[in-house]
Amino acid sequence: MTESEVSDDTEAAIVEAAYRALCANGYADTTISAIAAEFEKSKSLLYYHYDDKEALLEDFLRFMLDRLESDLTATADGDPEERLWAVLDRLLPPELDEEGMRFRRALLEIRANAPHSETFHERFSRSDEVILGLLADALRAGTETGVFRPVDPEETAEFLYATAYGGLERAVTLDDPETVARTRRAIRRYLNDCVRET
Amino acid sequence: MTESEVSDDTEAAIVEAAYRALCANGYADTTISAIAAEFEKSKSLLYYHYDDKEALLEDFLRFMLDRLESDLTATADGDPEERLWAVLDRLLPPELDEEGMRFRRALLEIRANAPHSETFHERFSRSDEVILGLLADALRAGTETGVFRPVDPEETAEFLYATAYGGLERAVTLDDPETVARTRRAIRRYLNDCVRET
Repeated sequence: MTESEVSDDTEAAIVEAAYRALCANGYADTTISAIAAEFEKSKSLLYYHYDDKEALLEDFLRFMLDRLESDLTATADGDPEERLWAVLDRLLPPELDEEGMRFRRALLEIRANAPHSETFHERFSRSDEVILGLLADALRAGTETGVFRPVDPEETAEFLYATAYGGLERAVTLDDPETVARTRRAIRRYLNDCVRET
Repeated sequence: MTESEVSDDTEAAIVEAAYRALCANGYADTTISAIAAEFEKSKSLLYYHYDDKEALLEDFLRFMLDRLESDLTATADGDPEERLWAVLDRLLPPELDEEGMRFRRALLEIRANAPHSETFHERFSRSDEVILGLLADALRAGTETGVFRPVDPEETAEFLYATAYGGLERAVTLDDPETVARTRRAIRRYLNDCVRET
């Protein structure tokens, strides 16, 4: 599916249907007919565009990633620590309800399948690059203005991302949202004690 | 399967077969017949003990976890930083070959299924507790002897585990072993700069 093939309206409806189907069923049980069941327009429109769920979910990931990128780029100036937290809040939301947990579980299940799919792999590589780039830019800005210590921006970005990612993954696989809150507190302490200039 | 039901020898052969099947096929495609195909003893012995792959993999996880626990408990004295690295080396091995990557990918796929299975959930909760406990004990020992700063042992253990877990998961899902090496370097810098007493 390219942007010229479907209207924005139809694309939004497909994305919404895929989101609901993933939250309700998880990745393994999200079939194309499960997505069609959540689709508010003509089912034939959906089947016309997609042969299988992989193709649909590839577009779904591209859409979600474009949105993440444009949301985060919008906050890419201002206080360096706020910029770091704008990214960290997306990775480890301060409020994560049952639906949010289910959606992230589905995303991690898709990601676990990334090595088997070139397109999934490409999508997640790109999302990692965007996230690492935004974190590194914020760290670089902070070291340049002297609010952060002279840390290595790329290494510290990767360290923060690994921590946030691991905290989220543990929370989701153990079905324990408290792990998200504890990881946020530990990251906050790390930024206070080891990154912020005293 | 309880220890009284099968000989150690048979259990070891079953574990070995499950390990090979998971490395070769990943979790989703590891059927009980795929495990039987790797089993060096009579196939009927395996089918006698297990009805399905879930029951077999539950025992496999228990076995692997008992081994991890006894290996790590053996190193649970000595230099606190060496004790931390004994755990971190298991999470983020300094040398991770193709087979090691495949095995960890299969483990993470099983873990992604943990919310759907009470026993998987219990196994991974327990392994997390063991790992967090060993990290926190090493941190506590280091703060008591003054080689570490007075960090919060539990919070720092969780922070280190989240980082190691996230680094491994990113490496495995992107099929990029270099991520493991970079995460190890970032953790080493964190321990040097923020945990070790100067």
